[in-house]
Amino acid sequence: MTRTVIESKTKTVTIGFDEPFCVIGERINPTGRKKLAAELEAGDFSTVERDALEQVACGAMVLDVNSGAVFTNKMAEDPRYADNNFVEPPLMRELITRIQALVDVPLCIDSSVPGALENGLEAAEGRPLLNSVTGEEERLELVLPLVKKYNVPVVAISNDDTGISEDPEVRFAVAKKIVERAADFGIPAHDIVVDPLVMPIGAMGSAGQQVFALVRRLREELGVNTTCGASNISFGLPQRHGINAAFLPMAIGAGMTSAIMNPVRVQEMEAIRAANFLMNHDDNGYEWIKFSRILDAVAAGTPFAEASKASMDAGGARGGRRRRRG
Amino acid sequence: MTRTVIESKTKTVTIGFDEPFCVIGERINPTGRKKLAAELEAGDFSTVERDALEQVACGAMVLDVNSGAVFTNKMAEDPRYADNNFVEPPLMRELITRIQALVDVPLCIDSSVPGALENGLEAAEGRPLLNSVTGEEERLELVLPLVKKYNVPVVAISNDDTGISEDPEVRFAVAKKIVERAADFGIPAHDIVVDPLVMPIGAMGSAGQQVFALVRRLREELGVNTTCGASNISFGLPQRHGINAAFLPMAIGAGMTSAIMNPVRVQEMEAIRAANFLMNHDDNGYEWIKFSRILDAVAAGTPFAEASKASMDAGGARGGRRRRRG
Repeated sequence: MTRTVIESKTKTVTIGFDEPFCVIGERINPTGRKKLAAELEAGDFSTVERDALEQVACGAMVLDVNSGAVFTNKMAEDPRYADNNFVEPPLMRELITRIQALVDVPLCIDSSVPGALENGLEAAEGRPLLNSVTGEEERLELVLPLVKKYNVPVVAISNDDTGISEDPEVRFAVAKKIVERAADFGIPAHDIVVDPLVMPIGAMGSAGQQVFALVRRLREELGVNTTCGASNISFGLPQRHGINAAFLPMAIGAGMTSAIMNPVRVQEMEAIRAANFLMNHDDNGYEWIKFSRILDAVAAGTPFAEASKASMDAGGARGGRRRRRG
Repeated sequence: MTRTVIESKTKTVTIGFDEPFCVIGERINPTGRKKLAAELEAGDFSTVERDALEQVACGAMVLDVNSGAVFTNKMAEDPRYADNNFVEPPLMRELITRIQALVDVPLCIDSSVPGALENGLEAAEGRPLLNSVTGEEERLELVLPLVKKYNVPVVAISNDDTGISEDPEVRFAVAKKIVERAADFGIPAHDIVVDPLVMPIGAMGSAGQQVFALVRRLREELGVNTTCGASNISFGLPQRHGINAAFLPMAIGAGMTSAIMNPVRVQEMEAIRAANFLMNHDDNGYEWIKFSRILDAVAAGTPFAEASKASMDAGGARGGRRRRRG
């Protein structure tokens, strides 16, 4: 049975076919969040810290930490800041250090800059998840040695030097190539978490079925865990949380074992908790019954994050009891 | 490709692997609805008529009509009313006649009383669905000749003279026996809609996975369409609509093609509409986008049934444009 083990200093999260779905919180990511990028440029980590606490309270089991900030003011003063190889490595170290002083879930180190990945690997306690390698030659040669050196699992995204294929056969072939190349480095398949790439159904009607079929094949033929940027599926559509909340159970039913997503959304988290129960990954419905009290509070008007935090503070939620306070 | 065709006088609904999920409205059923039974006993059909209109407005494509009323007052005066073989046949005829005067969706004739089934078959226009045959010998011998005589499709429930098995292998074998016995009568597999029987996950943790696996096998090995009493899955649990709303997309992903359920519930109907889109059974998301406006109205405080009716009256919903007014 494939098991991908991710660790913080004190906690272990296992992504696996027989495990509850692993929710990887996506919010700590300055890409496309200009306000957050500006705060980070000013050395203000308050939003990051709030996002870390809030995501864990809402049920994130792992936190993605992306250092892809653009420092526009500093760039105007010092041209070195136009280079992400200059900006990201120290930023990643600082982000990791601050976040793991606040919460005890494992982290997912997310950058396109090799120096940021390496700094993240140095700063992270335990066994973080590395995000990501692709099928691009340069990326394979840069990232796989890091994966081997630090003995960590890695997210493998199914695009290569030709870009993202709309053909699921090609995306499967890219995933297979990455798994094989990793094997050459002595990296086992259970340390590769494949992202088969989710297209928006608004643009491609077959996008959902492509993912479900790919997830089944990746699991049966390559024996790997899978992840995805779940909200892509509903890009551009109205009432997209309803699409996401049906997509996640269907993907879980097809065998998907994790997603990088926003856990501060009650509709999606409700769908995942229910799907865990329906997959027989929630003994006696213990987690569902606990979560149902959060749903009761939300129905009575309490915001989801607040209701989740109250449940965690009462010892009710995953990760609450052993949280360190800094 | 398996296609089960159900018809009213003017409308055709196809249950099939390549069709949107078929929602069969369950509400017209006096079993366990004492108030409704008392109304029917008094010759008051106003709740039935409201339920018919409301379910169609909310998206029911077929209406189940169950005549299983107990007439307690009449029973005290006339002992013949203690016999459902006396009560149900005329009641079924009356129910069918009144409902098809009001809405134009196909009907599902639901009774344990053969005389009620036959009266329903005589009264129904078009090609109704018969509900149900089981693997019980007596039931097979009574119902299959009706199915053949009237050339209608039938729901086949996977229990037999030994009761309901908790073993999915046994339930599959019962379904197979019914399909084979029907073939002896000249009834094709595409006119059998198998209900694999959904157990509550609160009592049996594997119940969800049992259904998903059974649906896949029924489809692949017997080539039949499937249905279920969807809300059984969440029996006895808190916040059960959340469980139902994850179960339905997962069942649809596994290949289930219809359910007998309450369509006057926004959470379940949202999940089904999204699942249809994700299965590529909603061209360009036309139905989803229309439904998203109902969700907008619900979010603004309009009850689901009211918002659905407004959408239908505006020509927005399935079945709205050709509805007869009596």
